[in-house]
Amino acid sequence: MAMGEPAADGLTEKCGVVGMSLDEEDAALPLYYGLYALQHRGQESAGIVTHDGFQQHSHVEMGLVGDAFDEADVESLKGSSGIGHVRYPTAGSVDTSCAQPFTVSFKGGALGLSHNGNLVNAAEVRDDLANKGHAFTSDGDTEVIAHDLARNLLEEDLVRAVKRTMERVHGSYALTITHDDTVLGVRDPEGNRPLCIGRLDDGHVIASESAAIDTLGGELVRDVKPGELVVLHEDGGGFDSYQLKDPEHTAHCFFEYVYFARPDSVIDEELVYEVRRELGRKLWAEAGADTDVVMPVPDSGRAFASGYADAAQEDDADVEFAEGLMKNRYVGRTFIMPTQEARERAVRLKLNPIRSTVEGKTVTLIDDSIVRGTTSDQLVELLYDAGAEEVHVRIGAPKILAPCYMGINMATREELIGANRSTEEICEHIGADSLSYLSVDAITEAVGKSGDDLCLGCVTGEYPYDIDGEMTDRDVERPVVRPEPVDAD
Amino acid sequence: MAMGEPAADGLTEKCGVVGMSLDEEDAALPLYYGLYALQHRGQESAGIVTHDGFQQHSHVEMGLVGDAFDEADVESLKGSSGIGHVRYPTAGSVDTSCAQPFTVSFKGGALGLSHNGNLVNAAEVRDDLANKGHAFTSDGDTEVIAHDLARNLLEEDLVRAVKRTMERVHGSYALTITHDDTVLGVRDPEGNRPLCIGRLDDGHVIASESAAIDTLGGELVRDVKPGELVVLHEDGGGFDSYQLKDPEHTAHCFFEYVYFARPDSVIDEELVYEVRRELGRKLWAEAGADTDVVMPVPDSGRAFASGYADAAQEDDADVEFAEGLMKNRYVGRTFIMPTQEARERAVRLKLNPIRSTVEGKTVTLIDDSIVRGTTSDQLVELLYDAGAEEVHVRIGAPKILAPCYMGINMATREELIGANRSTEEICEHIGADSLSYLSVDAITEAVGKSGDDLCLGCVTGEYPYDIDGEMTDRDVERPVVRPEPVDAD
Amino acid sequence: MAMGEPAADGLTEKCGVVGMSLDEEDAALPLYYGLYALQHRGQESAGIVTHDGFQQHSHVEMGLVGDAFDEADVESLKGSSGIGHVRYPTAGSVDTSCAQPFTVSFKGGALGLSHNGNLVNAAEVRDDLANKGHAFTSDGDTEVIAHDLARNLLEEDLVRAVKRTMERVHGSYALTITHDDTVLGVRDPEGNRPLCIGRLDDGHVIASESAAIDTLGGELVRDVKPGELVVLHEDGGGFDSYQLKDPEHTAHCFFEYVYFARPDSVIDEELVYEVRRELGRKLWAEAGADTDVVMPVPDSGRAFASGYADAAQEDDADVEFAEGLMKNRYVGRTFIMPTQEARERAVRLKLNPIRSTVEGKTVTLIDDSIVRGTTSDQLVELLYDAGAEEVHVRIGAPKILAPCYMGINMATREELIGANRSTEEICEHIGADSLSYLSVDAITEAVGKSGDDLCLGCVTGEYPYDIDGEMTDRDVERPVVRPEPVDAD
Amino acid sequence: MAMGEPAADGLTEKCGVVGMSLDEEDAALPLYYGLYALQHRGQESAGIVTHDGFQQHSHVEMGLVGDAFDEADVESLKGSSGIGHVRYPTAGSVDTSCAQPFTVSFKGGALGLSHNGNLVNAAEVRDDLANKGHAFTSDGDTEVIAHDLARNLLEEDLVRAVKRTMERVHGSYALTITHDDTVLGVRDPEGNRPLCIGRLDDGHVIASESAAIDTLGGELVRDVKPGELVVLHEDGGGFDSYQLKDPEHTAHCFFEYVYFARPDSVIDEELVYEVRRELGRKLWAEAGADTDVVMPVPDSGRAFASGYADAAQEDDADVEFAEGLMKNRYVGRTFIMPTQEARERAVRLKLNPIRSTVEGKTVTLIDDSIVRGTTSDQLVELLYDAGAEEVHVRIGAPKILAPCYMGINMATREELIGANRSTEEICEHIGADSLSYLSVDAITEAVGKSGDDLCLGCVTGEYPYDIDGEMTDRDVERPVVRPEPVDAD
Repeated sequence: MAMGEPAADGLTEKCGVVGMSLDEEDAALPLYYGLYALQHRGQESAGIVTHDGFQQHSHVEMGLVGDAFDEADVESLKGSSGIGHVRYPTAGSVDTSCAQPFTVSFKGGALGLSHNGNLVNAAEVRDDLANKGHAFTSDGDTEVIAHDLARNLLEEDLVRAVKRTMERVHGSYALTITHDDTVLGVRDPEGNRPLCIGRLDDGHVIASESAAIDTLGGELVRDVKPGELVVLHEDGGGFDSYQLKDPEHTAHCFFEYVYFARPDSVIDEELVYEVRRELGRKLWAEAGADTDVVMPVPDSGRAFASGYADAAQEDDADVEFAEGLMKNRYVGRTFIMPTQEARERAVRLKLNPIRSTVEGKTVTLIDDSIVRGTTSDQLVELLYDAGAEEVHVRIGAPKILAPCYMGINMATREELIGANRSTEEICEHIGADSLSYLSVDAITEAVGKSGDDLCLGCVTGEYPYDIDGEMTDRDVERPVVRPEPVDAD
Repeated sequence: MAMGEPAADGLTEKCGVVGMSLDEEDAALPLYYGLYALQHRGQESAGIVTHDGFQQHSHVEMGLVGDAFDEADVESLKGSSGIGHVRYPTAGSVDTSCAQPFTVSFKGGALGLSHNGNLVNAAEVRDDLANKGHAFTSDGDTEVIAHDLARNLLEEDLVRAVKRTMERVHGSYALTITHDDTVLGVRDPEGNRPLCIGRLDDGHVIASESAAIDTLGGELVRDVKPGELVVLHEDGGGFDSYQLKDPEHTAHCFFEYVYFARPDSVIDEELVYEVRRELGRKLWAEAGADTDVVMPVPDSGRAFASGYADAAQEDDADVEFAEGLMKNRYVGRTFIMPTQEARERAVRLKLNPIRSTVEGKTVTLIDDSIVRGTTSDQLVELLYDAGAEEVHVRIGAPKILAPCYMGINMATREELIGANRSTEEICEHIGADSLSYLSVDAITEAVGKSGDDLCLGCVTGEYPYDIDGEMTDRDVERPVVRPEPVDAD
Repeated sequence: MAMGEPAADGLTEKCGVVGMSLDEEDAALPLYYGLYALQHRGQESAGIVTHDGFQQHSHVEMGLVGDAFDEADVESLKGSSGIGHVRYPTAGSVDTSCAQPFTVSFKGGALGLSHNGNLVNAAEVRDDLANKGHAFTSDGDTEVIAHDLARNLLEEDLVRAVKRTMERVHGSYALTITHDDTVLGVRDPEGNRPLCIGRLDDGHVIASESAAIDTLGGELVRDVKPGELVVLHEDGGGFDSYQLKDPEHTAHCFFEYVYFARPDSVIDEELVYEVRRELGRKLWAEAGADTDVVMPVPDSGRAFASGYADAAQEDDADVEFAEGLMKNRYVGRTFIMPTQEARERAVRLKLNPIRSTVEGKTVTLIDDSIVRGTTSDQLVELLYDAGAEEVHVRIGAPKILAPCYMGINMATREELIGANRSTEEICEHIGADSLSYLSVDAITEAVGKSGDDLCLGCVTGEYPYDIDGEMTDRDVERPVVRPEPVDAD
Repeated sequence: MAMGEPAADGLTEKCGVVGMSLDEEDAALPLYYGLYALQHRGQESAGIVTHDGFQQHSHVEMGLVGDAFDEADVESLKGSSGIGHVRYPTAGSVDTSCAQPFTVSFKGGALGLSHNGNLVNAAEVRDDLANKGHAFTSDGDTEVIAHDLARNLLEEDLVRAVKRTMERVHGSYALTITHDDTVLGVRDPEGNRPLCIGRLDDGHVIASESAAIDTLGGELVRDVKPGELVVLHEDGGGFDSYQLKDPEHTAHCFFEYVYFARPDSVIDEELVYEVRRELGRKLWAEAGADTDVVMPVPDSGRAFASGYADAAQEDDADVEFAEGLMKNRYVGRTFIMPTQEARERAVRLKLNPIRSTVEGKTVTLIDDSIVRGTTSDQLVELLYDAGAEEVHVRIGAPKILAPCYMGINMATREELIGANRSTEEICEHIGADSLSYLSVDAITEAVGKSGDDLCLGCVTGEYPYDIDGEMTDRDVERPVVRPEPVDAD
């Protein structure tokens, strides 16, 4: 554990980024479609910045992509190169000044910047820049990166300026950047957040997930490498690569596979859907329950439950896969819940059991994670109320026992039900007949990466970055951490 | 075919209604939750009307339930009795004057009215009332019913006034009504639209679907009978029933089971989810395809595909159930598609294949219906592009060959791909290797009702109501489809 | 002083009301024009309620008349009878539930109510009604009157019901009311707020000020008498009068003449513009200052200054009338003033001296009142800065030394500069070379009414209504109050 | 008349501009106050651009200054230099892309530009730039100037770049510009639109009118000279002047004095209020009418009527000055007038006669201009209806007989009542007993400038700029109006 380092500060952000250089066509409409494909990564705000060779154009608004842009907005964004961003709704009040892409019109031209991730030394860098006279309009990490880069660009060429900024900022970042009409992609040396390159009919694209490339009818070329700067050619015909930092180990976020990314995306060479199915199979192998039916929590548990049911059937277990919970897709954020009783009713509004698949049956309920435990609690009760004989809960990931500092706004340590409770206690808390999590080993196997190359901080409590007050897994002996289950149930 | 009758006029509406009488508690919050549960039946506007014993309160706004009401709105709706409504987005410009519940403050007190359905003689009734001096502020059916009922209430007691209105208006209607603080439920004599009664801890509720009762923690008592008037007791303690019209045959809409209702609702004593699974099983029996995988169009085809896959496995067919298409849940109505090319790209934004479950495989794709054929066309192409060897399309309902006049805004006859094309032609049009629909008999069997008691107009072209320019199934011989013909009304 | 009476409660409101019964034409558009003419009496919200003989229609919105209504809104308000209301922006948060006309749909029909004034026993009446089960949605006086009247209408005929309500509520009120399609006008027994009757080509109108009648091309018939109920004939052809209460003395608000009403209105038989000119003449007679120029504070002081200048010229005084202050008509409520310095700058934004009429000259500045004294302070400084040699301030009304409880949201006693300071102290405070107010006698003479028939509470501290903690002028000997100046300078 | 020149194109704009460089303080709040003072020059949109030394900040919104900015907006505009703009509402649809200041983030830094005026060769320059690859997002003149200037700045120093642009664009322009943190003011060689320089406590300001300087507590230094570039020092301590073009004659718009500018502004060394009073005096001398009263059309005719009345009294004529028309200050743009009858009623809503000053009297009505004649028509009728014996109309400017091409959105030639009618015909049209305009000579005398140095196009039909299809006054003999002819340019 590294003392003396400043803690992770600023807003935690979980976002989607995209960038594009086309031959002749305007980039705004494809960027807009790309953002649509990444909408699951952020629903708070959406923005696009383009450059027409002479000047920069920008449109950023609160809300979903479809609400933030109308046809005139897209049309006004001239130019064949540009970047886009969708931003995650964080808890509490929303600061519009944090909507992205962030733009700077400075003496060295125009800069646009889209960021997914979280710096651990943003406060320090910000203080330095403020001392040099920089005025900040937001308290986000992105403005810090943008000002540092703009400052470097007044003194260095593009590649060196980026390198200098990469040496200055620490933490997780997947960036798409425009400097005038040049489009860049940058991934932090640990490769924490995903970023990949695609080829289109008339250009190239950089995006958080490959599903955005599919949506544009393009082809995935490869992932951006940890520590790599990619510079798209202005005519869309290709890209140059600069390996600006060489990591010893990477720290890919395993939670992208489990929870956050689209199932149809390929991240660091693995198809997310298949990873989830494989996790489901391993869940059967490690902790299969002999019940009449197995059902997913929709939609998050579906791929896991499908793999689980397949593995069960291969074992000739008589476990029927069924949709036992109907999801109300219209329950949104603005839901009114004035009383405690109303809050308890909330889960009934979101999920209603289909009685015929539950009544008089023993049930295995599959989900991807338990964060605060409140929903699981209510789901188990819901199934009993609908006549389930037994309810066994199986989770397709290890127990979350520590917060994320790398850009997922998960929960505080106090809120995390897994931080201070054994699996037995959690099982009792949610009222299930049994509860099992997946092992950490199952994750590394299913993802096909060594534990040394993954960020498993939230399920091990050991982080690949220096977080004030937290252990760094780079400082501890590896063998201790991974081979054995972190908490034996 | 009945000439001389006015054609169905006004706006076709597919809506959700709810009504409630509680003992002491304010009804507004439970009504609000009830509307949430019925949100799938209408996303255009939402409204609640209550009565506090002395005066009526009303709040109606455009948009989803969660957007239309804030906490202050709900709080201002005093009183332990009331009704609610959600309205379906119809094509073209939206007429705010049609948002419901419709209210009338007339000399006989205050009336509130929520309507699901479509009258076939609204124009005629409207003209009559206009001649008597009534001023109409909308062109919807609901105002016609409201004015007719208000007029009758100036001359008759409540039950007789409703009976008189039921004798005057023809077509489909499921209504919840407040007359001052009395809450009523009325279902048209053919029972075309669903309506059911539930018991709560401290009152009674009437709703379009039983899922709304579940959401409130209540218990389904029974369906409102075709031609029945239900009057809730003001203290919530029970209800009185008046069978005001006795139908020889009913005309329950089969499409509620196939497409519109929530899977977890019980309609006219059948659980929708099980009807869909059974339709899927029959689809395998009637037209099973021997392919590597079977996959639903999400989410509409899921229950059908699940039944289909189960039946296939029971037959020991080697057909794997898989999620092959990933749905982007954020693609909404405001989507920008300036060019033809963009419109073609739209399906890629909505649905993206999961390559591992499609590539190199023969595929059966299951959906509930083909209306215009444009989406099916693109989905088939999408699967081929993702590497499918063969694509066989199976539809869990008969071919739609005629429009709906009973409240579902389906499409015009010209737009309906099934209206003028054989199944072979449609198969060619959508580019599939094979295409099969389900038989009409399969529907009647799965729904467990005689064809004489269902409205099958859109799949047979014969309607249980007099529609100008359309055949009435009560007038024609239908030996093939339904064993016994029905005489003219 | 009457103890034991509840204090004036609720919101103080200064509003404009209108009502109309036409022969055949819809009333909504004329009501809309009438509200435009009364816009100076309230800019916070605007509303119209009509009745088409069968049902009531209502549209109420926050904002100015022109913003609150579009053409479709006006068109939806069917019926040849109706009322309208504009509401005054009170300090602090604005309660939308107080926007008027207030409507009640009760078992005895539909009621609409527009109120200008302020009750002194609203809390008491509200408590009574609440004890009888009435639920209130606002904390305004108007809802109290509406509920009391509706309740009475369930037991009595219209005239008796109004009489009963007039016996129950105390304070100032000018009301326009619809009960179904009957339009009423009511003025409190003291006639505190103005209300008059006009004849149109095809109907009759009741309005706060005669200017609204002019705007409609109509003719002023007469004022509604204190304590009178006026019921318009439904065909617009005339009206019936019921003198429901007979006052010994009236209490017409003199401040309507001085400040609030339009100059082109005739109130209680006096043209406001001429009253103001006469007050200006008296101001010269009582306290004329021998300066180079006399200039009004625009626009409030203009008529006073014009009369003052005329009287001066008749006396052959060499005082030139000049516009010395240019008003910026765009300075609105939303003005940003983050700092004290900025607040001081505010007056420069609102008023800028025209240097040529001020520089090197002795100046008399005329205004209608000094409330808090902050603006006067700054105006005097402004004139000195622009080069005035001397600045003499003359006010066309007596010193305001006590708050208004009758519907004008003036200021609290603490904020009133005249409440605790002598004229000399105020003169010093505002930095003028001299300051004079008009005498109370001048008011009674110019208005042409005895002091016993005017409400002069704010300039004498003695009120014609029982206000908790304030003197009642009905309890004191008259001769003391009026003949001698209240505070000799 | 010059053929072959492109006609004036784009939008005609009448706007207000401001620019500022302060020592330490942020410029945004003073710019905001400056725009408030210039609000009369444009109510459609408001915007401010600042620069903090490192980057540019911008906020532009539709609406009045007070609506377009909230406190957070002003606070986000960092930096001690900046410019602002208010824009005039032009007829028809409003193009938000034309809101200003216009900003360009280009490779040479950041440019902000505020423009008042109208180019006559904008289409030509735009085509040239478009051929060089520039993409335009609006169809306004301002973007043309901005792109041309930005292009020149890539090749030249600041002063030469501005000079080059001044050689390229023709027409009227008063500009405030930011290039990074440098603030410029530019006035076209003919000085058509006003622009002046002021000194503040801690900086310097450039503004359309001196009233904006007064509002900021500053001091007018002088007008910007025709053809001059003013560059403010970055520390606010002074400015440099570059006379980039030397005009033989100027073409100051005389209509600024008559109509558009604030009375309290000094334009080209003349106080507008005194010019108007002098025009009123000349109007009495040229065309005095012996009536009982003289009254202004409020507010436009007030200064003229005041001068007129003074001159009359000096001649011992018995003409009383009176306010005979009461203006309703709340009648705005959104006024509903569905029928012809309603449109006629509109004038009654805007202006209502004060009967006591009109009835039984002969009246002289003073205004500054007659454009379409519709209002005059109705005012005259209004006065007769109020009992006027005679109505004589006197206009404080010559007859408008041709459109303005220099930035005032006046009317088309067809709409101008003076374009095709003699004064007698107009008098008959408006129904007055007599009508007189002022002579052109009176204008030149009152303004104190030779006719050769004024733009009098709208009252002579001869323009100082080449307008396709219009005469150029530099080409014609004008012995009567202006002593010496001017040779062709």
